[in-house]
Amino acid sequence: MPSLTAFESQTALKPLSFDPAKLTGLSERMIRSHWENNYGGSVKALGVVKKHLAEALANKDTPPFIYNELKREHLLRTGSVVFHEYYFDNLGGDGKAGANESKVIAEAFGSFDTWETEFRRMGAGLGGGSGWVVLGFNTHTKQLENYWLADHAHGPAATLPILVMDMYEHSYQMDFGAAAAKYIDAFFANIQWDVVARRIELAQR
Amino acid sequence: MPSLTAFESQTALKPLSFDPAKLTGLSERMIRSHWENNYGGSVKALGVVKKHLAEALANKDTPPFIYNELKREHLLRTGSVVFHEYYFDNLGGDGKAGANESKVIAEAFGSFDTWETEFRRMGAGLGGGSGWVVLGFNTHTKQLENYWLADHAHGPAATLPILVMDMYEHSYQMDFGAAAAKYIDAFFANIQWDVVARRIELAQR
Amino acid sequence: MPSLTAFESQTALKPLSFDPAKLTGLSERMIRSHWENNYGGSVKALGVVKKHLAEALANKDTPPFIYNELKREHLLRTGSVVFHEYYFDNLGGDGKAGANESKVIAEAFGSFDTWETEFRRMGAGLGGGSGWVVLGFNTHTKQLENYWLADHAHGPAATLPILVMDMYEHSYQMDFGAAAAKYIDAFFANIQWDVVARRIELAQR
Amino acid sequence: MPSLTAFESQTALKPLSFDPAKLTGLSERMIRSHWENNYGGSVKALGVVKKHLAEALANKDTPPFIYNELKREHLLRTGSVVFHEYYFDNLGGDGKAGANESKVIAEAFGSFDTWETEFRRMGAGLGGGSGWVVLGFNTHTKQLENYWLADHAHGPAATLPILVMDMYEHSYQMDFGAAAAKYIDAFFANIQWDVVARRIELAQR
Repeated sequence: MPSLTAFESQTALKPLSFDPAKLTGLSERMIRSHWENNYGGSVKALGVVKKHLAEALANKDTPPFIYNELKREHLLRTGSVVFHEYYFDNLGGDGKAGANESKVIAEAFGSFDTWETEFRRMGAGLGGGSGWVVLGFNTHTKQLENYWLADHAHGPAATLPILVMDMYEHSYQMDFGAAAAKYIDAFFANIQWDVVARRIELAQR
Repeated sequence: MPSLTAFESQTALKPLSFDPAKLTGLSERMIRSHWENNYGGSVKALGVVKKHLAEALANKDTPPFIYNELKREHLLRTGSVVFHEYYFDNLGGDGKAGANESKVIAEAFGSFDTWETEFRRMGAGLGGGSGWVVLGFNTHTKQLENYWLADHAHGPAATLPILVMDMYEHSYQMDFGAAAAKYIDAFFANIQWDVVARRIELAQR
Repeated sequence: MPSLTAFESQTALKPLSFDPAKLTGLSERMIRSHWENNYGGSVKALGVVKKHLAEALANKDTPPFIYNELKREHLLRTGSVVFHEYYFDNLGGDGKAGANESKVIAEAFGSFDTWETEFRRMGAGLGGGSGWVVLGFNTHTKQLENYWLADHAHGPAATLPILVMDMYEHSYQMDFGAAAAKYIDAFFANIQWDVVARRIELAQR
Repeated sequence: MPSLTAFESQTALKPLSFDPAKLTGLSERMIRSHWENNYGGSVKALGVVKKHLAEALANKDTPPFIYNELKREHLLRTGSVVFHEYYFDNLGGDGKAGANESKVIAEAFGSFDTWETEFRRMGAGLGGGSGWVVLGFNTHTKQLENYWLADHAHGPAATLPILVMDMYEHSYQMDFGAAAAKYIDAFFANIQWDVVARRIELAQR
């Protein structure tokens, strides 16, 4: 099943699927720094963590609670790598939701506006700190829901991400300072809804 | 896609798939208390949280950071409900892994023993506290890995659970006191590997 | 100032200040297990963490984010050791608050009953999981407040503990199963208020 | 003892003790935004949380686990307010530690350089995320130690802060982008050691 074993991880960064110079209201400088330093930093860190894990596992004297601190970093960095790839992949669009995905979201939340209101409010509430807002399809409960994550190590059980918004301050401080609301507007203006639609389709199978 | 909308949740508890009087080394009293009080408590709590969320969302004056505290509880209780259902469903077996699932796990971890060593060690490291050990298939990286979760609100990104071990103290204190290692032995003796095999198949699709 | 340097920690357990066979409604078996395994386990673990920290600090090649995982365990185990010592020290009494401490608490919360209602409710809300309820004197804001802690690594800034209630499940599962409310009653019946009074005096200086 | 009751909080921001236009390598714009938006935002939020708590406590039907989410926000915002006040107060100096505080720190850590190496490394490890590095005096263990905090809700038990470094990205992104190391250099160049010395004296009493 897996191409990489449990103690391996990707060495290359997934390229941006859009031209970072052409987003609306999000600067190329910020997107490049975010992609290279924050996403890229986690790709590297994950590789380092895996090496430490393999060594520590081979050592019978490693106390389990010390080992678990490495597993915490494993969880954290995996979340950072995966969520960042979802995040960048759902940017680069024109922000206009198509009929199909609008309908699915509207059915799940009562109305599309209800969904957007909650998603934006959750983003606003994370302003000044860290975290993610994730519209996800919970494969176990079969529900489409918005989830609040405090950091990369948090995550909804058994859930496939559909739309991911980074609320770590590196997502907006450089362009907007503390004005997280302006960033959320810019994020919405750049959503690549075709990608969102495809994720919904895959999750529906 | 979803049968329940985002602000609804299940009202019934998923019945145990095995006779709790017949596990090896895990008492019926403890399993019933765990299922009814801890899992069942979260099913009820999740319903309450959803009602509070619907009301708070309809109120334009709810400060976003207050709203997000409810979303934290939403994430936490969703994790509790979902992981508990996975957990109970992967109990009730004879603890003997079949050839297919053994092979998949061995390929992912180098050997089946490496996987088991890490999974058990992670459990040991969580003794005396809270959390979960999850063997999961990360649908994004296509890797089968063991994940450490500090509580129900943690979780690996984009991951389908394959084998789930509860390490909250309500999983073992009643039978074993602080002796978490004995519980881990008992857990392994009762793994329902057929269920694990089916989850691997579903994840592989 | 400090007798122990930053990379040392106590090797001995602080003895119980009361006869664990004589508490009201809390069994000697549970108290001894809690003291020896959970508190004692953290005393040992803290010593191990400090050794790992000293070695990792001396190694210039330790990645900072790996180092910080050890610092997380340092924070967690320090909290466990310190809060457990406060906890056991404020047990062993008759549960009857004296006039002085009652007055101080009543002034801070509007009434003694308001304080007790909040403290007990916070305990109830932590049932089934982990954490602490701490009445603390915040030395910076000069306020006496109840604080909710999710685990040993959480804590109110610049605060001296006044009354500490352990809500990890090892505090009650053995005697009460999932019935956390019964444990909270038993905790209140055994509060050693003279110790609480002394802590208030020390904090007031 | 307390001037404010448990359900009150300060309404005014503590003014900066230095001229933000005159720090070395930290821009006035960033310091003002940090003070006004992040610290000031938490002062306001804490007031809102306290109102919600008072209302929710008076309501007998509030489920304890919902109440505790407000208590989590209470803990988080208290930490934000208190740590920010410590942080700004220990800025505005020339970065040169005096003989007394250097000696105390050197005795606690083996050498002043060992302390600084650990403190800086912990900051580096928090780059790209959230958190605090706190040199604190643990009043219970009588130790001077560096503590890693993941967010405002974390904190060392029974500890008085001595030197506090904010590692939330709002502390540096505006001036340095992702280059957290440059910020740490700038932080050290602006430490107000007289304030640190006074805190040590107060803690030593």
